[in-house]
Amino acid sequence: MQLRIPGPTPIPEEVLQKLNKQMINHRGKEFAELIHDVTRRLKDLFQTKGDVFILTGSGTGGMEAAVVNTLSPGDRVLVVSNGFFGDRFGELAERFGAEVSWLRFEWGLAADPEAIRQALSQDNSIKAVLVTHNETSTGVTNDLASIARVVREFDKLLLVDAISSLGSIDLPVDAWGCDVVVTASQKGFMVPPGLAMVSVSDRAWQAHSRARMPRYYWDFTLAKSFLERRGQTPWTPALTTFYGLIAALKLMEEEGLPNIIARHARVARRAREGIKSLGLSLFPQEAFASNTVTAVRAPDGINVKELLRILREEHGVILAGGQERLEGRIFRIGHLGYVEEADIEEVLEALRVALPKAASRVTG
Amino acid sequence: MQLRIPGPTPIPEEVLQKLNKQMINHRGKEFAELIHDVTRRLKDLFQTKGDVFILTGSGTGGMEAAVVNTLSPGDRVLVVSNGFFGDRFGELAERFGAEVSWLRFEWGLAADPEAIRQALSQDNSIKAVLVTHNETSTGVTNDLASIARVVREFDKLLLVDAISSLGSIDLPVDAWGCDVVVTASQKGFMVPPGLAMVSVSDRAWQAHSRARMPRYYWDFTLAKSFLERRGQTPWTPALTTFYGLIAALKLMEEEGLPNIIARHARVARRAREGIKSLGLSLFPQEAFASNTVTAVRAPDGINVKELLRILREEHGVILAGGQERLEGRIFRIGHLGYVEEADIEEVLEALRVALPKAASRVTG
Repeated sequence: MQLRIPGPTPIPEEVLQKLNKQMINHRGKEFAELIHDVTRRLKDLFQTKGDVFILTGSGTGGMEAAVVNTLSPGDRVLVVSNGFFGDRFGELAERFGAEVSWLRFEWGLAADPEAIRQALSQDNSIKAVLVTHNETSTGVTNDLASIARVVREFDKLLLVDAISSLGSIDLPVDAWGCDVVVTASQKGFMVPPGLAMVSVSDRAWQAHSRARMPRYYWDFTLAKSFLERRGQTPWTPALTTFYGLIAALKLMEEEGLPNIIARHARVARRAREGIKSLGLSLFPQEAFASNTVTAVRAPDGINVKELLRILREEHGVILAGGQERLEGRIFRIGHLGYVEEADIEEVLEALRVALPKAASRVTG
Repeated sequence: MQLRIPGPTPIPEEVLQKLNKQMINHRGKEFAELIHDVTRRLKDLFQTKGDVFILTGSGTGGMEAAVVNTLSPGDRVLVVSNGFFGDRFGELAERFGAEVSWLRFEWGLAADPEAIRQALSQDNSIKAVLVTHNETSTGVTNDLASIARVVREFDKLLLVDAISSLGSIDLPVDAWGCDVVVTASQKGFMVPPGLAMVSVSDRAWQAHSRARMPRYYWDFTLAKSFLERRGQTPWTPALTTFYGLIAALKLMEEEGLPNIIARHARVARRAREGIKSLGLSLFPQEAFASNTVTAVRAPDGINVKELLRILREEHGVILAGGQERLEGRIFRIGHLGYVEEADIEEVLEALRVALPKAASRVTG
C-alpha cells in the first residue's frame, strides 16, 4: 500500500513498534522526562530558542490555539490566503471575533509579499498577519522568508500555519521572526495524528498577556506552567503519540534537518518531473510548487474520483483529490515525512497504467 | 507493573496489538466504516439514540465542547461542584463568559439534589446545570439520576462530565435526560488518551442553535455534518486511538455493559473492604464512594509522596496522590477499565508492606 496523501503520512516501522507500549502515569517522572526530551528535540526542528508546546488535538486545534492565545475580539488581522487552508485560518479567526481583512490570491499562485506590504501600509490598525506556509490544497509553498521580513518591518504579529511544512521544508522560526508557528504530528513528523505542536515567541507572549479571546483547553499560560513546573501537560496527553514522536524525532535527528529538507526537495522534484513526463500539468505556479505535496491538474476526459478508485483498488496507491472548488479538478500526491524517491516511482508507474483506464472508463 | 491511577488505565493486550496498525486515509472508505461502527457502539454504551461525536482531544476538550456549543456569553449556569473537576467545569464556563452560580459541596461529600432544587427554584435565570458524575479527585459518584430528575423538572439544560464514569458506572443518557455527556478514551474504554466522546440530545441541539460562545475546532454542527455526509471528522482524527477504540468496544460488547458495571462495583467493593481491613479510612462519604476510584485518607505519620514512591519503586504499583487542597492528605486507587479483583489484591498487598515502611522512614 502506498499512502500518498498529504498527511497522515506512513509511519516508519521503528515508530510503529513504539505505539503499542503500555500506558504510564502522565503525572509521573517517566512522562516528565519524555516531554522534556520531546520538547527539546522539537525546538531544534522549529529552529527556535523560544517556547514550544505540544497540545493534544489536530493541527486545526493548534491553529485555534495560535489565534485565541494572541488576539482579542475586534482585533483587525490580515489573513493571507491562497487556498482552502488559508481560508480556514481566517474563518477560524472570524469565529472568535477578529475583524478579518482578507488578502486573497488565486488558488495555485503564491502569496505576494509586496501585496502584503501594501495592505499593511494602508491599514495601520492591523495587529497580526495570518499566513499559511505550505498551502496543502493547491501544492504551493509561500515565500515565508520574504513575508516574514515584511511583517517584521511593520512590527506586526505573525501567526503561521506550518502544518504541512515544518520538519520537511526549511522554516527557521527565530531567524525569520515568526511569532506562533503551528504544526502537527501526522505530517513531517511521521507519527499518527493527535498532537499539534506550536512555538511561541517573546512577541507572542506580549500579545498573549493582552489577548482577551476566551480560552481554556488551548491556553498557553497553562501549558507553560505545567510544562515548566511539573513536566506535564494541563490535560491528559495522547501518550501513544508521544511514544511515537520521541522515536520519530530520534530518526529525524539521525538523518539531520538539512538532509531531511534536501530529501523532500529531491523527492518533490522527481514527482514534478514524473508528472510532466506523463503529459500531465502541475496545478500550481511551478516556481512555488511545494516540496511536500504535488497538485496535478486533472486532464480532460478524466474523472478524478474514478482515477483515485483505480489507483487505490488496482494499484494500492492512495492519493488525495481536490478540496472545495478544486474537487474533481485536481489530484494530489503527498510526499512528506516517511518518503523516498522509490515511493514516487511507484506512484508514477501506477498513474501511467491507471490514467488511460480512467479515461476509457469515463468516455467509453 | 500495576498502573492504578484513575486514567489512563492499562490497555488490554488485544487493544495494544491494534495500535501499531499503519495509517489510512482519514477521508476514505475504510475510515468511514470505522467511524460509523465506533459511533454505533458508543451509542450503546451511552445508552442513547441521540448523536455521539468523537473529538480529537483530551476529556477537558470535551468539557469545553459541551460548554461552547450550548451556551452564550452572559448565560447564567449552575455549577455543582464537590471537587477539583467540578471546579474545572465551572472555571472553564467562566472563561467563556458564562455567569456561574456556584453550588459547592464539601470535598468528599456527594452533591445534594435537594440543594440543586432550591438553587433552581430561587433563580429562574439559570439556563444550564453543569455537574460531574464521578468526581475523580475525591472518589465520589454523585447521584446523577436524582440530579437529572430535578434538572428536568425545571427544564434546564444538563451538561455532564462523565469522563471517569461512562462505560464503567451506569449512565443511561436518554433515560435520565442528560443533554451533553462527555467522556474520554483513556478511562473506562481502556484505550490511550486522545479522544473525547460526547453525546448531544435534541434539547442540546436547540440550545446549540442559539448558543453564541465562539467555537470552531469543537463545533458540533461541523462534527455532525462531516460524520453524516462523509463518514469523517472535520479535522484529522487520532487514527491510532480509533484503531484501539474499535477493538476495545468489541471487548466491551462481548462482556456486556451490565456485566462491566457489575465488575466495577465488585472490584470497588473489594478495594474499599481491603482498605478498611488495612486500618485505613476512605476519604469520601461511603454511601457515595465511586466504583472507578477509591480515595483513601493518608494516616497520621505517613508522607503520601514517600508512600507512592515506595509503592512504585519497590512494588511496581502506581497510585495517584491528591489534587490541589487534597495533596498530601489522600491517595487514590484507580480501578476502572481494564481491572479485575486480582489487580486490587496486588495493590492491597503492596500497601500492606509499604505503609509501615513509609511510616518508619518519615518518623524514623
